[in-house]
Amino acid sequence: MRFQGNYYVSESAIIGRNVKIGQNAIIHENVEIGDDSIICENCIIGEPESESYYNGHYKNPRTVIGRNSLIRSGTIIYSGSIFGEHFTTGNMASIRENSKFGKNCVVGTQCDIQGDVVFGDYCRLNSHIQISKKCIFGNFVFIYPFVVFTNDPHPPSNQLIGSNVKDFSQIGAGSVILPGIIIGKHSFIGANSLVNKNVDDFELHSGNPAVKICKVYYVWSKENKRPHYPWPYNFDRGLPWEGKSFDDWLKTEEGQRYA
Amino acid sequence: MRFQGNYYVSESAIIGRNVKIGQNAIIHENVEIGDDSIICENCIIGEPESESYYNGHYKNPRTVIGRNSLIRSGTIIYSGSIFGEHFTTGNMASIRENSKFGKNCVVGTQCDIQGDVVFGDYCRLNSHIQISKKCIFGNFVFIYPFVVFTNDPHPPSNQLIGSNVKDFSQIGAGSVILPGIIIGKHSFIGANSLVNKNVDDFELHSGNPAVKICKVYYVWSKENKRPHYPWPYNFDRGLPWEGKSFDDWLKTEEGQRYA
Amino acid sequence: MRFQGNYYVSESAIIGRNVKIGQNAIIHENVEIGDDSIICENCIIGEPESESYYNGHYKNPRTVIGRNSLIRSGTIIYSGSIFGEHFTTGNMASIRENSKFGKNCVVGTQCDIQGDVVFGDYCRLNSHIQISKKCIFGNFVFIYPFVVFTNDPHPPSNQLIGSNVKDFSQIGAGSVILPGIIIGKHSFIGANSLVNKNVDDFELHSGNPAVKICKVYYVWSKENKRPHYPWPYNFDRGLPWEGKSFDDWLKTEEGQRYA
Repeated sequence: MRFQGNYYVSESAIIGRNVKIGQNAIIHENVEIGDDSIICENCIIGEPESESYYNGHYKNPRTVIGRNSLIRSGTIIYSGSIFGEHFTTGNMASIRENSKFGKNCVVGTQCDIQGDVVFGDYCRLNSHIQISKKCIFGNFVFIYPFVVFTNDPHPPSNQLIGSNVKDFSQIGAGSVILPGIIIGKHSFIGANSLVNKNVDDFELHSGNPAVKICKVYYVWSKENKRPHYPWPYNFDRGLPWEGKSFDDWLKTEEGQRYA
Repeated sequence: MRFQGNYYVSESAIIGRNVKIGQNAIIHENVEIGDDSIICENCIIGEPESESYYNGHYKNPRTVIGRNSLIRSGTIIYSGSIFGEHFTTGNMASIRENSKFGKNCVVGTQCDIQGDVVFGDYCRLNSHIQISKKCIFGNFVFIYPFVVFTNDPHPPSNQLIGSNVKDFSQIGAGSVILPGIIIGKHSFIGANSLVNKNVDDFELHSGNPAVKICKVYYVWSKENKRPHYPWPYNFDRGLPWEGKSFDDWLKTEEGQRYA
Repeated sequence: MRFQGNYYVSESAIIGRNVKIGQNAIIHENVEIGDDSIICENCIIGEPESESYYNGHYKNPRTVIGRNSLIRSGTIIYSGSIFGEHFTTGNMASIRENSKFGKNCVVGTQCDIQGDVVFGDYCRLNSHIQISKKCIFGNFVFIYPFVVFTNDPHPPSNQLIGSNVKDFSQIGAGSVILPGIIIGKHSFIGANSLVNKNVDDFELHSGNPAVKICKVYYVWSKENKRPHYPWPYNFDRGLPWEGKSFDDWLKTEEGQRYA
């Protein structure tokens, strides 16, 4: 990355302290980038809504990227989205308008976030994921590659029914989630599933169509031959309870906010 | 989008009236862009065929984008393709040589059209779709995310057998269509299906492998508790019968052309 | 492609003879590009590792692209990877650090190679494929679109268990390979499968979950009504036995190296 020369920043953009901007990057009007963030090469931040191409008076809404974010090369973020601090993208992610992400979220390489979605904090999306409009995600939801959240129950129609995934749930690679599904907290969807029914808290569902396999407590780690779920007791990398006990963290002021 | 300055247009390109070209965009030789079209940032239009890299005398074939088109940022369109008016792409779509699209088609974000394909009018491809060579699509065919149309019956081989999808059919998210499948008109493929048999007109097929579930007439709208298919009676957004009765439109001169 | 003007090459990059570099391309420090290679538009070669954004003294590892390579437009290759001669990418491929590819490999459009992987010679990846870390592939392995190789047996965890695919195997479109799977030589995974068990040499597995269907000898060509597998007896395009008998080639000095 060359943090110099050949990039474009709109005069109305607000760029924080110690922000680095890569070559060929384009920062549009009404964009605000937090301190210490990095916008890598070829990124487009604040991409105008289609309407502005046809209406010269249209004012694109404000786009806010929190501090300490890392927007990897080739990412396109439309105007009108808000991202908390420590936001990270993979290469060539595409995020449409009116998307809201909490802090410490990751949207991986070549994801397609279609806009009008809400993510909590510490959500991690691997690569090649499509999230359609109206979907809502809690905190600490991790989604694996090639997952699709659809929203039209009988396409094409004018009904858009988003799904709702609760805290700490995990969606396995290649799964398709049909419209309007509620996935409870701490649940786990197996790889390549077709989810057409709601999933209760702490349940593992899998298959095409997905069926309940068991409670997640019965999934054991291959490494240490103990139950792996609820996973926060066994995984903490980059998470607020890193190096502490999950139970102890839950009792802290921060943990209480997610309880 | 900054419609000025830092882009490249070949001297042999023909740019219509009121065309806007975004920053870093590249319009190659022998490209023709219709009036009132918008080529967004970082797009490459008329990308040379590989042969031209090695043969300095190779002349890339003509690329034509119809009027009123919107080519979103990062899209790469190879030379030798033809697109009707009101063509739209999502971000970072890739369209290889010798693709033909009728009017009012949409190719969504990060789609991969491998070339040598034919689409009729008013086809809509959502995101992350792969269409392999030799596939043929009618009019008003809508394809949802992560669908793949394959073409090699026993890979790798030199046989390429495209599929053929008739008018008004809908292909659900995550489905894989095996080579040489014929999908009749007004049919509907459920999500995450593996389609290895032909599908008759007005049929719903679903599953891995897909089987006939029923005629589409039996799929009801969740919203109004009435049959939703054939869908043109219940959905008209952006379609030529918008605001009219589908039956009345079918009797018009335009409707007759699609009958 | 304009092989002039508006691109950037680091002073420490080593560019071979007769290399062509497209517009807006960025060649970073410590990159070495072999003779007669083509780097198309908007490519980023030697993308810095994240650490270098925060540590000004961090030196990104060496990136080597062999001679006669063709890196198509929009591809992003991170520093620290090594590619043999005649390496080809599709558009907008993403290849992370510490990936090793032998000679004559292809990584298709919008693939996501997550790094720490090893491929032998003559591997061909179609479009939209995700290879996670720690996976190992032999020679002549062909992978079709939307395939995912996962590596975390109970996500999220700190265990990363790559899979291992042996020479001449074929992985069908849309399949998900669970972590730590061994796929024997000359095997074939059917489309849209979920592979959760090892696959022996010369076996066809298919389904969700995948089961053994038969030995590959029983899969016949639709064209000539003869067994198609082992496929090297029936397909040679671009392969070292092209125009010769596969058996004769196996006896050559080159063939012995792959025996």
